[in-house]
Amino acid sequence: MMKKVISQKDKEAFGKRPWVQLINSLSGFKSCNLIGTCNETKHTNLAIVSSVIHLGSDPALMGFILRPHSSESPRHTLLNIKQTKHFTINHVTKKFYKKAHQTSARYESEESEFSKCELEEEWHDDFTSPFVKESPIQIGLKLLEVKYIEQNKTNFIIGEIQKIILQENIIKKDGYLDLESANIVCTSGLDNYHETSRLNRLSYAKPNKAVKELRIDGTIKE
Amino acid sequence: MMKKVISQKDKEAFGKRPWVQLINSLSGFKSCNLIGTCNETKHTNLAIVSSVIHLGSDPALMGFILRPHSSESPRHTLLNIKQTKHFTINHVTKKFYKKAHQTSARYESEESEFSKCELEEEWHDDFTSPFVKESPIQIGLKLLEVKYIEQNKTNFIIGEIQKIILQENIIKKDGYLDLESANIVCTSGLDNYHETSRLNRLSYAKPNKAVKELRIDGTIKE
Repeated sequence: MMKKVISQKDKEAFGKRPWVQLINSLSGFKSCNLIGTCNETKHTNLAIVSSVIHLGSDPALMGFILRPHSSESPRHTLLNIKQTKHFTINHVTKKFYKKAHQTSARYESEESEFSKCELEEEWHDDFTSPFVKESPIQIGLKLLEVKYIEQNKTNFIIGEIQKIILQENIIKKDGYLDLESANIVCTSGLDNYHETSRLNRLSYAKPNKAVKELRIDGTIKE
Repeated sequence: MMKKVISQKDKEAFGKRPWVQLINSLSGFKSCNLIGTCNETKHTNLAIVSSVIHLGSDPALMGFILRPHSSESPRHTLLNIKQTKHFTINHVTKKFYKKAHQTSARYESEESEFSKCELEEEWHDDFTSPFVKESPIQIGLKLLEVKYIEQNKTNFIIGEIQKIILQENIIKKDGYLDLESANIVCTSGLDNYHETSRLNRLSYAKPNKAVKELRIDGTIKE
């Protein structure tokens, strides 16, 4: 198989858009989530992100990246999170990934992506931020910290999980969430959406012991 | 559909392992990569991670999370990165995901996961860190910063891309990497591996304009 080697000096030759597509493709398959926020007057905002990651289980923390904020290109999500100290993470399914993608259009701050993209707001109890009604896994978080990344002026948002609302059939006895059964999608590059199919679950790895293939319930195959 | 609501106070009732599995499942589908490092004497280390994310294209930055470092549970990857200021990110395929999973076993610092897990070291030119020969997409990075996350003692490693080595057929004209054609896998929860199939590529979203389904080459479907 022929190999291709690319370095920073090839950036010009690539052109701006292909370079962005290439670098965005490099991290592999990505999670697909909608970040729900509102300002102090409960005006809502919704933004699709592919950078949500697990940070730890105890305390239960998650994080994601927000692009640079400037007055020409305001990041309503960041402003809202700083104002209300809360946000929601909502998983995206095959049923509404096109609507989720549409939230990336540049809407004005007076407009809400919920109504513009035909997704329904859902409010739970006294939780500050709006959830996406169509989403089978909704997570409510409290802002812990905004870490500023100087090198490219992005922000790494760290939140603590307060509340998880999910369809009962998704959670398995051992705590695993069967995302596939809920038709949750993943993304690649800037604009590609994928469904998945399970290859295997694998046993806990120990030195000098072969890894075993497991069923979804954790029992050993064959 | 019945809904289930879970909050921090349910942690005890869940038990330690199911809680960890649940919280690890919450971010959605995750990338699957092997981090290749070595110390100053070129002793190598390989670690599977599911937290690699895209940070920006110009400069081309990527980041990932490393669990807490302590003398009882040393993180060889972190020590090596701090020593040599370089590391590699290598995509995992269906062909060797079981070997990749095995790198999560607790090997001693004198042992290399490369030999223990039967993966082959590959060295390119004068790049400091080892790549995984079996991997169709290999990325060499220079350490820019280690951001310490106080709340749970993890480290967010930020690197700048120096070199990308990939199978020529994976990269498309517009810079997109067809991960699927290279059999690259994704993960969910603690121990689940999935293959993907493309639903659609979607057009650039603009307000008041319907999103269009695209083929992989960017042309409009139908």
